[in-house]
Amino acid sequence: MTAARVLARADELSLHSAWDDGILRAYLTPEQSRVNAIAAAWMREAGLRSWPDEAANVCGRRQIDDDERPALLLGSHLDTVPGAGRYDGILGVLVAIEVADRLRDAELPFALEVVAFGDEEGTRFGTTLLGSRALAGGWQDAWLDLHDADGVSLREAATTFGLIPENIGAAARPPGSLVGYLECHIEQGPRLEDLDRALGVVTTIAAAERRMISFRGEARHSATPWELRHDALLGASEGIVAVERIARDQGSHATVGRIRVEPDAVNVIPGFAEFSLDLRDATANRRDATWGLIRHELQHIAVHRGLDLEFASTHIAPEAPCAPHLREAIAAGIRTTGDESPIDLVSIAGHDAMAVADLTDIGMLFVRCAGGISHHADESVREDDVALAIDALEAAVRHLATELV
Amino acid sequence: MTAARVLARADELSLHSAWDDGILRAYLTPEQSRVNAIAAAWMREAGLRSWPDEAANVCGRRQIDDDERPALLLGSHLDTVPGAGRYDGILGVLVAIEVADRLRDAELPFALEVVAFGDEEGTRFGTTLLGSRALAGGWQDAWLDLHDADGVSLREAATTFGLIPENIGAAARPPGSLVGYLECHIEQGPRLEDLDRALGVVTTIAAAERRMISFRGEARHSATPWELRHDALLGASEGIVAVERIARDQGSHATVGRIRVEPDAVNVIPGFAEFSLDLRDATANRRDATWGLIRHELQHIAVHRGLDLEFASTHIAPEAPCAPHLREAIAAGIRTTGDESPIDLVSIAGHDAMAVADLTDIGMLFVRCAGGISHHADESVREDDVALAIDALEAAVRHLATELV
Repeated sequence: MTAARVLARADELSLHSAWDDGILRAYLTPEQSRVNAIAAAWMREAGLRSWPDEAANVCGRRQIDDDERPALLLGSHLDTVPGAGRYDGILGVLVAIEVADRLRDAELPFALEVVAFGDEEGTRFGTTLLGSRALAGGWQDAWLDLHDADGVSLREAATTFGLIPENIGAAARPPGSLVGYLECHIEQGPRLEDLDRALGVVTTIAAAERRMISFRGEARHSATPWELRHDALLGASEGIVAVERIARDQGSHATVGRIRVEPDAVNVIPGFAEFSLDLRDATANRRDATWGLIRHELQHIAVHRGLDLEFASTHIAPEAPCAPHLREAIAAGIRTTGDESPIDLVSIAGHDAMAVADLTDIGMLFVRCAGGISHHADESVREDDVALAIDALEAAVRHLATELV
Repeated sequence: MTAARVLARADELSLHSAWDDGILRAYLTPEQSRVNAIAAAWMREAGLRSWPDEAANVCGRRQIDDDERPALLLGSHLDTVPGAGRYDGILGVLVAIEVADRLRDAELPFALEVVAFGDEEGTRFGTTLLGSRALAGGWQDAWLDLHDADGVSLREAATTFGLIPENIGAAARPPGSLVGYLECHIEQGPRLEDLDRALGVVTTIAAAERRMISFRGEARHSATPWELRHDALLGASEGIVAVERIARDQGSHATVGRIRVEPDAVNVIPGFAEFSLDLRDATANRRDATWGLIRHELQHIAVHRGLDLEFASTHIAPEAPCAPHLREAIAAGIRTTGDESPIDLVSIAGHDAMAVADLTDIGMLFVRCAGGISHHADESVREDDVALAIDALEAAVRHLATELV
């Protein structure tokens, strides 16, 4: 009944939240400290030696594995967005611990490790994948000067948490120390449910780019006649509607999640409006083609309304393809659960695997989630699907063991 | 050279601001305390007895007028929006002081008073016309529990300012104590400039209503497929574009000045979006007809996108027509400046006169402002226009003196 234990553990972790009403667990917070300690204890119960790394990720390695052997790494993240569900990231950590438990005495041609990353969502400091990028060797000391919404720097937060800020980069694993990375994650989309499948094989993690887009017009009294107005919010509103129309036509994913105006007064025409754009597609080329159409439309709106348009890229990631032999291992694992022709899926959401791909090959196993709902309290998985996921991931590791001998 | 003195005084008052960069002067602030003291000194120089009333308005009455005689009241306000210009409200106070100075020894069949209202814009506590409504007898003690953006209650702010909160309502002038109210104000629109006129007669202050409108959908991960999204910001954006189209077609003024979304995260589809609507037209009937069309469109958007729509009225004011005999006095005053056929204008902007209309008849004189720009640092008037405004308002008072004998 390991699936039941996974669900019970997800429930337990959900109690460690900065919010009483809804889950919020960000990087380098007391909540992270508590779930890290709990995850470490569960890793030890599963026969792993466990330690916190320099970046506040929790690591575990089988007792029987010496320190020299390259490892297959299984994992995901324990941090959340504000108002999160119980499974995004967390399920992957808990499934990895179950698989390690089952394989505690197995003879494998590689070491086996589990990792619970401390930051994937970027909730607190705006920049995502801090934990997984540190492990993969991509940590940048400039990030120590990022600040949270309360003005606390990452440097201060790390010190308070018990880290040595200048030493976070030492979480980097040496090249060659890993043979691969496998991540189990809820789909965060509806296709498995639509196709009546429990599990799927990720082919690629989509290319993504985030931008801040602003229109500047003129702040004027609300008595100003229509023909004299240069209303930045009207420009932004037209732009947001155009983003939906264009991205939907192109088959891209696009989200405007943030907006603010100045001076933000009931009786003053907004002189400034700024909004975010999160744009994703299977490849960077497809993503950029959609952005070209959106940009053209935004420029047209700016000219038409007499507004100044500016945009800046705040995050960019190319597509991260999963390695063919790890895709096949995941597919082989799924086939052992009775699904003879596993479904291939593109992951529109980003994952720790994107960061780890800079260090080693990646593979991902998707698990059906109800209604495709994620980043929401209604996020939900079925116990029987979790049981299949544990079985499939264990089988994928065993498959790799035979392949990599 | 009284016009030059008015402009120099407007410059002097602009220095008393909560912001170093741009003018912000709100109700019951240290800035108001300073400009009230300065205005009181100028009133005394103009031959007026001056006193602060219970609501932090500054009043002045000619030395030669006894306390019993009903008064003609001249005035406007000294508070500002954030990022204001130098003339909205302020010009009317300064012109009134000049006219009182010229008439300090004039024999009039009524007393002559000047008032500088402490709150017209509603910048600090959200509710407008606090000073003029107190004078007109419309003060409500429930307003003591309004809070500013820093969480300071109006009750606390009044105490700090030196007022007795429970006594603010005593600023009310008795019915019959006024024979009328005349207010000089910048047009805050372009029509006088377009028609090459310095001055105009206000016929009516437009009917206005302010609403908060919200769409509620579902907060979801930005990887959610288009067909599963219920994006509250897309509903709001479509709605804001529709507000412009409908109001413009109907000849109404409409402004969406505020917007906010929840959870306001780059990678989460907004589950909630709320925006303000400031809707104005010459009459309440016209305003409400436009709102009916807007509401219908918002409901259509909500159904189409699977969103919940709510709206609440936060401020409502019927049109405030100027009294025919005071319109004629203003027009007679303008004619003495050489404009034989003064222009009639509807005021789209609200004014203290709307509040004073509950107590006595009102009349308003509009002064040309450059480009119709107001609520902005570029707000500007011409010195020769100010000179004509002083002459016209003085002549209007003298005209009334002959009419009311």
